[in-house]
Amino acid sequence: MDFKKIAVIGAGSWGTALAITLSNKGHEVKIWDINKEHLQELKEHKENVRYLPGIKFSDKLQPADTIQAAMEDARMVLFSAPAQHFRSALDSALPYISQDMIVVNVAKGIEQKTLKRMSEIAHDKMANMKYVALSGPSHAEEVGLGMPTTVVVASSDIKLAEYVQDIFMTEKFRVYTNSDVIGVELGGALKNIIALGAGISDGMGYGDNAKAAMMTRGITEIARLGVKLGADVHTFSGLTGIGDLIVTCTSMHSRNRRCGIMIGEGMNPKEATEKVGMVVEGMYTTEAAYELAKREGVEMPITEGIYGVINNKIDARDAVNQLMTRDKKSEITF
Amino acid sequence: MDFKKIAVIGAGSWGTALAITLSNKGHEVKIWDINKEHLQELKEHKENVRYLPGIKFSDKLQPADTIQAAMEDARMVLFSAPAQHFRSALDSALPYISQDMIVVNVAKGIEQKTLKRMSEIAHDKMANMKYVALSGPSHAEEVGLGMPTTVVVASSDIKLAEYVQDIFMTEKFRVYTNSDVIGVELGGALKNIIALGAGISDGMGYGDNAKAAMMTRGITEIARLGVKLGADVHTFSGLTGIGDLIVTCTSMHSRNRRCGIMIGEGMNPKEATEKVGMVVEGMYTTEAAYELAKREGVEMPITEGIYGVINNKIDARDAVNQLMTRDKKSEITF
Repeated sequence: MDFKKIAVIGAGSWGTALAITLSNKGHEVKIWDINKEHLQELKEHKENVRYLPGIKFSDKLQPADTIQAAMEDARMVLFSAPAQHFRSALDSALPYISQDMIVVNVAKGIEQKTLKRMSEIAHDKMANMKYVALSGPSHAEEVGLGMPTTVVVASSDIKLAEYVQDIFMTEKFRVYTNSDVIGVELGGALKNIIALGAGISDGMGYGDNAKAAMMTRGITEIARLGVKLGADVHTFSGLTGIGDLIVTCTSMHSRNRRCGIMIGEGMNPKEATEKVGMVVEGMYTTEAAYELAKREGVEMPITEGIYGVINNKIDARDAVNQLMTRDKKSEITF
Repeated sequence: MDFKKIAVIGAGSWGTALAITLSNKGHEVKIWDINKEHLQELKEHKENVRYLPGIKFSDKLQPADTIQAAMEDARMVLFSAPAQHFRSALDSALPYISQDMIVVNVAKGIEQKTLKRMSEIAHDKMANMKYVALSGPSHAEEVGLGMPTTVVVASSDIKLAEYVQDIFMTEKFRVYTNSDVIGVELGGALKNIIALGAGISDGMGYGDNAKAAMMTRGITEIARLGVKLGADVHTFSGLTGIGDLIVTCTSMHSRNRRCGIMIGEGMNPKEATEKVGMVVEGMYTTEAAYELAKREGVEMPITEGIYGVINNKIDARDAVNQLMTRDKKSEITF
């Protein structure tokens, strides 16, 4: 394939891991971050010592001094800002996004103040933007080290998704396409709620059975909301739904799970969030999903329970008891 | 509710945990095992010291000397023999199974020599048997200790499933119903293949991303075969599908996963199976699924890879490479 010029906006662990993957494949990648001090460190060390230490950049990966310099002549720009900051990152980049530039976004979340998905924010700014969501079960640390990983690129324009699939695909980084942007975005965002919940369950000393139940019934209620919002139910059974949920709920890499564990052990939710130190996206997403479920009239008992726990409205043990003693159900709810 | 007389055939860890759950709820439970020495130990210790140590039986749970004595006047008989032994266990019990006795089976597997599901074996013997499959993410150890657990009871007669739901349900043991017996049986059986695979991946030193990918794409191909065999695709997204898969693939309780880990670390598959010491159902199920996939013309690349590895036809690392470098795909394959 012919190699592309690619800009990466946001040098957290995931943005950096993807920049490394792309540059190691041969693309010319420029990376930029809003934090000047962090950017300076990237240049100095040719490595992301803060968020992805131990993995050196090749010459194909260059930190850029300005967002404009990063995006100059780029065929594709990849946003890896936290979900609540995607809007402002996009605002900064918008002057340099041309009609035929491809925009890939890896942020997983729902904007709390508007309840909008990331692609909604993007298309509000530029209706015909060539927008692709990238999501899936992918700890940055493992991708950085070149361990086998699968992800999904989603676009309503499937040809565009296939084009981006080709840009990313390597023998350690397998990329699937999906045209269901809504499902991919919602799965990636809402799974963080269940990760919090799985952490709480672990922190309370419950076992694998309880956690598997929460994950399975959790993805069921996420799918229920998703279908109401226009997603394809099958997407939630895929890599960006249950796949990402599995990775997030079973690994200590996950900030959401770590935060949940501390809450389950009895720590105040606010304190637990501060202790994690980085963004705990699930705290925002739980609020957003709770509001969306109310607005759409969708039953989400697990989300409701976690919402109650993180807002100090109900004790975690009581929340679990409420879930276990609900009305008898048939399993198939669609 | 009024309490029932219940017979449990097979005193492994899972049969014992369910017998304890039922008897602690108030049912009168008799348990029998084909191994006389083991049965004697149960009577002596009022505890299953071999397979579920540390949990004493109440007076409502009594070991019976013969299968006939266990089943006398029973309203329900629960089979918990390994899948490859269900046929012979059923043969021994058949003279005592009346027309209105409920038969619950918890065996997860496919009979290797006939490629039949457990309910097919049962209905071959007695066409109008009141048959219910019980399955879900449930380590016996946790159920025995009364930790929160959810399972599914499946019957083509949904009223029968609801009746059995009432018999089992407690505030720590939540039971859902499902009328898709085929899907529930196949999910429970075929997940053991993926558990082997997840173990192999772990044993090779691969990370959470690879394991989540294997689990997600694994359940996708299981569902593909299941739908071909008459199952409802949604069942595979439920507790007996992905839920059970999650528990099996992420816990050291799982014999299939433990066996896989040793294979991934380089041990000969035969030796690894012997080292586990108990039945590694996944070894049989992989063979059976491989045959079924061939017979039905269904693409199951992960199953095929694991089949190759456990039969020493391909190196595990080559099998993973083959999976990662298959043709580019769209994610939705239904």
